[in-house]
Amino acid sequence: MPSGRILVAQGGGPTAVINQSLVGVVLEARRFREVTRVYGARHGVRGVVDEDFVDLTQETSHNLELVAGTPAAALGSTRDKPDLAYCRAMFEVLRAHEIEHFFNIGGNDSADVTRIVAEEALAAGYPLRCIHIPKTIDNDLVANDHTPGFPSAARFVAQAFAGANLDNAALPGVYIGVVMGRHAGFLTAASSLGKKFPDDGPHLIYVPERAFEVERFLADVRAIYDRLGRCVIAVSEGIRDAAGHLIAEPMSRDHERDAHGNVQLSGNGALADLLCELVRQRLQIKRVRADTFGYLQRSFVGCVSDVDQREAREVGEKAVQFAFWGEDSGSVTIRRTGFYSADFQLVPLPEVAGKTRLMDDAFIAASGTDVTDAFRLYLRPLLGSGMPDAYRLRGARVARRLKPD
Amino acid sequence: MPSGRILVAQGGGPTAVINQSLVGVVLEARRFREVTRVYGARHGVRGVVDEDFVDLTQETSHNLELVAGTPAAALGSTRDKPDLAYCRAMFEVLRAHEIEHFFNIGGNDSADVTRIVAEEALAAGYPLRCIHIPKTIDNDLVANDHTPGFPSAARFVAQAFAGANLDNAALPGVYIGVVMGRHAGFLTAASSLGKKFPDDGPHLIYVPERAFEVERFLADVRAIYDRLGRCVIAVSEGIRDAAGHLIAEPMSRDHERDAHGNVQLSGNGALADLLCELVRQRLQIKRVRADTFGYLQRSFVGCVSDVDQREAREVGEKAVQFAFWGEDSGSVTIRRTGFYSADFQLVPLPEVAGKTRLMDDAFIAASGTDVTDAFRLYLRPLLGSGMPDAYRLRGARVARRLKPD
Repeated sequence: MPSGRILVAQGGGPTAVINQSLVGVVLEARRFREVTRVYGARHGVRGVVDEDFVDLTQETSHNLELVAGTPAAALGSTRDKPDLAYCRAMFEVLRAHEIEHFFNIGGNDSADVTRIVAEEALAAGYPLRCIHIPKTIDNDLVANDHTPGFPSAARFVAQAFAGANLDNAALPGVYIGVVMGRHAGFLTAASSLGKKFPDDGPHLIYVPERAFEVERFLADVRAIYDRLGRCVIAVSEGIRDAAGHLIAEPMSRDHERDAHGNVQLSGNGALADLLCELVRQRLQIKRVRADTFGYLQRSFVGCVSDVDQREAREVGEKAVQFAFWGEDSGSVTIRRTGFYSADFQLVPLPEVAGKTRLMDDAFIAASGTDVTDAFRLYLRPLLGSGMPDAYRLRGARVARRLKPD
Repeated sequence: MPSGRILVAQGGGPTAVINQSLVGVVLEARRFREVTRVYGARHGVRGVVDEDFVDLTQETSHNLELVAGTPAAALGSTRDKPDLAYCRAMFEVLRAHEIEHFFNIGGNDSADVTRIVAEEALAAGYPLRCIHIPKTIDNDLVANDHTPGFPSAARFVAQAFAGANLDNAALPGVYIGVVMGRHAGFLTAASSLGKKFPDDGPHLIYVPERAFEVERFLADVRAIYDRLGRCVIAVSEGIRDAAGHLIAEPMSRDHERDAHGNVQLSGNGALADLLCELVRQRLQIKRVRADTFGYLQRSFVGCVSDVDQREAREVGEKAVQFAFWGEDSGSVTIRRTGFYSADFQLVPLPEVAGKTRLMDDAFIAASGTDVTDAFRLYLRPLLGSGMPDAYRLRGARVARRLKPD
């Protein structure tokens, strides 16, 4: 029989709903008589090595519910990628505290950490069950219909572009919004859900799944601008040229990389500035503006999908159920069962760990600069209830008196 | 007796609630028997010169209410600054359409436009009454307690920093958020309303009302970072050195200026990148991130203060009442009458036009990097109801077993 002590940690980038999953684990675990203590590791696996735990069993259910509704990672997060020595240090701590269940909430890097820890535990003969709980705004976990955190970030992006489109219609010009997404274009594609009228922006959407060609880009912008007198563009930070080189990379002065080898793309405006300069210089368009959505899109307080909140809670609850009513380590995955309804399955960790899901071809229009109706139907129910809406004047024209039409 | 035709226009940067003022004018005007037609000028004064009007009398009240709830400027906006020839062209059009009431919704530049048009009308002997209706997210109109549009933008900034603070606590480092505000720091100072716990960010707030010294800035950041292991910073795009030079200006490659002589500050990440580089190089801090809030803070769909919505509607209604029950041109102003309650007065246009209000000294802490309680009390009621809130785990520490504390 297990020790009764379980441990939960959060890894990778914070999201609007990662704390829902944390609280799902804590509250569900308390309902199992096998569980005596629920510990939380501060700053992910780093907190395991450092033996830096908080006792979540001592939290009140009221405060846990309030934390569940708060974005970011209440336990703190980490970008550490454990190697063998790191994992052995973790075992020592886990053994000392008689912890035999480890729940790790995170993206594909965190899934990989979970896999390594599970494998090292097995090799060391330590009875540790490891459950990975999905989370990433990038929506790039394989074996999942979508990942908790993505719907809320997608909602932010859709609402942001709905507003940027209105702003750009009021003061016409070219507007470029740079959206997170290193490899997968899901979040950038979500900008399309901000459109309502046929001439609304974003008029052009560039995702990493399609090679970015500067001349083609300029021709696309020219065509839209000549037709509408304005152009709203959504660009993924991860766009690459035909050779696979990041468009943003030559401009990142420091090339900061995290432990997973990822170049830091967010947190600077280099790509936005480059594209603005191109449009200004080559197309001779004067009013060109850009925003890099940066950290706002993942941490803004007050933009959340209720569907996302509910599912994030559920994957936490299911993780505990899979752990105590099953026999295996694994990763909790989300499957779509209806329009709209979802269910959850546990899959072996290697099926998810370290792999990157890209947008299906069926989601990207033949033009390469728009999404399909299949994508709109895929995303819409995830955005949840109460999406704000935009309206315009019907605008009956007044006949001219001085300069007849 | 006036002709019965009135004209309304919107100028300057769009806001979350400028359409409330537009709809306030339209719906209130229809209740006056003197009014037969309510025209809207497309893209502000430019629409007057171009004789580009829509007949708002033909809109349904239902659609007007939906437009009122939509951000940006439904009629379109402009940055044009009319000179004498421009104004004479306007008169020709206004005369031809027998328009004798002109309502112009906008900031201090638009107030100045309204003043010029009123003066030119007087000089030309044309019976035009001009009413300026306040609007600006910068909150920099004199003679006003605050301006419609500012509360909603302030709410966005507060919610954004509440989230950025949580994100920064989860993955510690230095975070810099660059906020709009060419001369006045109100919007940047609003970041302080995102704080809840004593160690929450923003830990440092830099407004244009105080000279920005690089060495002082670096020392401030160092001190916070050494104490908390992280630092969240709010910076106004308009910060200047002791000689009055914009910190951002040397980096703006194009120095684009609008018709009012304003350098384009938003829409590029130059200031954010400069400050990041300074912190990285000089303080040897590795994880440094920045966002330039750009157009998100003024156009995001779905972040609005209900107090702001209501008052923006009211200034539109009052403008019509002042026009038909009074004798003068003027600018509608907001006065605070209680905690919290407001009323409206019409003041002569020259009292508002072209002037810039800065933050009171009483709103800025002696340190120069924080706001005072007076500012918090000033701003809090304007943010409206339903502000999202952030919570944290109480976090009972688990005693170490391997490495005793």
